[in-house]
Amino acid sequence: MKTAKPTILVVNDDGITAHGIKALLEVMSTIGRVVVVAPDSPQSGMGHAITIGKPLRLDKVDIYEGIEMYRCSGTPVDCVKLAVNIVFKGQKPDLCVSGINHGLNNSINVLYSGTMSAAVEGAIEGIPSIGFSLDDYNLDANFSHCLKFVKEVALQVLANGLPVNTLLNVNFPNTNNIKGIKICRQANAKWAEEFDERVDPHKRTYYWLTGEFQLDDAGEDTDSWALAHNYASVVPIQFDMTAHYAIQYLNNWKFNV
Amino acid sequence: MKTAKPTILVVNDDGITAHGIKALLEVMSTIGRVVVVAPDSPQSGMGHAITIGKPLRLDKVDIYEGIEMYRCSGTPVDCVKLAVNIVFKGQKPDLCVSGINHGLNNSINVLYSGTMSAAVEGAIEGIPSIGFSLDDYNLDANFSHCLKFVKEVALQVLANGLPVNTLLNVNFPNTNNIKGIKICRQANAKWAEEFDERVDPHKRTYYWLTGEFQLDDAGEDTDSWALAHNYASVVPIQFDMTAHYAIQYLNNWKFNV
Repeated sequence: MKTAKPTILVVNDDGITAHGIKALLEVMSTIGRVVVVAPDSPQSGMGHAITIGKPLRLDKVDIYEGIEMYRCSGTPVDCVKLAVNIVFKGQKPDLCVSGINHGLNNSINVLYSGTMSAAVEGAIEGIPSIGFSLDDYNLDANFSHCLKFVKEVALQVLANGLPVNTLLNVNFPNTNNIKGIKICRQANAKWAEEFDERVDPHKRTYYWLTGEFQLDDAGEDTDSWALAHNYASVVPIQFDMTAHYAIQYLNNWKFNV
Repeated sequence: MKTAKPTILVVNDDGITAHGIKALLEVMSTIGRVVVVAPDSPQSGMGHAITIGKPLRLDKVDIYEGIEMYRCSGTPVDCVKLAVNIVFKGQKPDLCVSGINHGLNNSINVLYSGTMSAAVEGAIEGIPSIGFSLDDYNLDANFSHCLKFVKEVALQVLANGLPVNTLLNVNFPNTNNIKGIKICRQANAKWAEEFDERVDPHKRTYYWLTGEFQLDDAGEDTDSWALAHNYASVVPIQFDMTAHYAIQYLNNWKFNV
């Protein structure tokens, strides 16, 4: 670990006023110098979206005493890009933490999650990065029981570093009796959608996205298994999306062109 | 290959009126029954975003004769979800194709791209899926020289299927002399951002995202290498983001909690 106090970038997707980021700030303030760049409004489900068709705002705000904070008009990934390039002016922080998300981001949710995409962007920028999420979707979720785990994982990452081009996806069950930490793989799952079809006052149809998480993975080494058994799950994530095992198969195709 | 005419879902991220989707429709109409569900406005850079905070519109439109078309108010991923659940009512199409994107989606761009995220969502739904992109960012890009490759890749996928939980990311160089198709892995790269800082008429600062693609991969088996050498690149993509190789390393950490 560096002997100087580490600099920690804190982001999220629930917005700069969310309880989850406040909880994360409480922990990170005990570890290092904290800088927050977070969306000015909720950005759940934004995935790895970036803002290219319109300009971005980045304004310094005073919310929690002694913490340098900026609110951003863009997505969680925009926040990381602006942090690295405008706030840190290319001087990388020692750690990037995202969350704590109000709701789980295990399994396939890693793709949809703004929280996790911000952490992925941190890793692309070469910063050791971690996304944290709690299985509680309420605005007034209580994060106190997972804070000691948040701190321990952050300290381990600062002390040990992470393998090149990886980051961590950390999820917590909503229980006061977390049994410990399990290193896991992403469970295979999907959302079985059921759109809620309604009619507006002008007689036009509209749809609300809804659905159920459908686990298609009986493995006991998955994040979904760990959470269901009251463990905190830690999944190492990469942003190389190549299905390397499929290359040999495709190399045998004869393209008639 | 099925003997019946295949049903093909066509999506994109440049919007239902883009030249690229028109080009894709021309090809797909020669292969099967085509159904289009595409965004009503450009959605470039939307990544795997979904719409959860507001309702969605899905309206049937008449643009190209003989083709069933719907415009959607949401993201490219929303389009796929609505297509599968509302338009196809759970009866999966035989193929999902996305694009042809106005601009490359090779390498790290797979994460930011709405085009590729729509194809990823198709694969999550269990549909053989392909994203197509051309190295031409102009609204009036000419796609004619890549159409025979588009058709050949689609026919091969229909004939052979794809390994479970994979899809294809297909990119074309902007040349009339495409040398052939190369099966590749995703090149390691990032965007080196340079935000363009400006001042609005009210004296407030705003930022435009800009930047340069920075290739950090000297391999000759990458999509970036293939494109630079005038080959069409085909990368098999997975949506398991676990860095499996990192699990052993993390399993040796001693968590003091």
